[in-house]
Amino acid sequence: MPISGQGDKWLHNFVPYLIYRITNQLNQRLRGRLRKSGINISRWRVLSVLRAHGELTLGRVVDLTAMDQPAVSRVVAQLEEEGLALRQVSSEDSRFVHVSLTPAGDSAFQDIYPAAQRHQELALSGFTKKEIDTLKSLLLRIQRNITSEE
Amino acid sequence: MPISGQGDKWLHNFVPYLIYRITNQLNQRLRGRLRKSGINISRWRVLSVLRAHGELTLGRVVDLTAMDQPAVSRVVAQLEEEGLALRQVSSEDSRFVHVSLTPAGDSAFQDIYPAAQRHQELALSGFTKKEIDTLKSLLLRIQRNITSEE
Repeated sequence: MPISGQGDKWLHNFVPYLIYRITNQLNQRLRGRLRKSGINISRWRVLSVLRAHGELTLGRVVDLTAMDQPAVSRVVAQLEEEGLALRQVSSEDSRFVHVSLTPAGDSAFQDIYPAAQRHQELALSGFTKKEIDTLKSLLLRIQRNITSEE
Repeated sequence: MPISGQGDKWLHNFVPYLIYRITNQLNQRLRGRLRKSGINISRWRVLSVLRAHGELTLGRVVDLTAMDQPAVSRVVAQLEEEGLALRQVSSEDSRFVHVSLTPAGDSAFQDIYPAAQRHQELALSGFTKKEIDTLKSLLLRIQRNITSEE
């Protein structure tokens, strides 16, 4: 006989799931917003980490975007072709490729930025500055906990 | 000339990115933990939502796991083959398939549960009960904000 009924709702108290679910809901919204601006979310992710961090190795772009390597390579190649990014083999170690935004790439970022800004504003609507700071600091503590696990 | 240097670090203040990044870091850890127990994360996701919610339509499993439909169908078919889940066409509307755990499926869930529990404990290590409640309530407010966007 199957376990039927309503379940025990245990996931309501499982914080990693709550964060996972919200991420997916946020992604879905962001995807919709960007689609209206004619931009796909992969492209946005690559532009946004390059803008935030400046020049990065390809591997670091993979890490920071949490996209897979082939997808990142594809987007970066596309951005380069459009004059929005530059790829350069490292002068110190030729195994590494460095990627950076061109001024045109930076301005492509600026075009999309307001949509991302609205995305965040909506997610945090009704939050006080103090609540946002509390949220960030709790999330950063989770991040420290899990990245120091080794 | 490329935009070089260190970037403007804007993502540090972009909460949706912080949540996205933590989700990916959590997933990576959880995947590692489950691998040690010989279970893949897709299977875990399906078992965990069935345990939490009881009988669900296939579509609702897709929604709650944030997995794609083919992946969910594959996992559910596999679980059924192993006697861990049951699929039944809805008696009210034959377009819907209902899925539920069997007692064996429930016990498969119980076998994995401690690993998930440790996963959460580590992520929240050092948090007081009050801080966990604050975090949950702030996250739930984000969820309400974005799911009421329409």
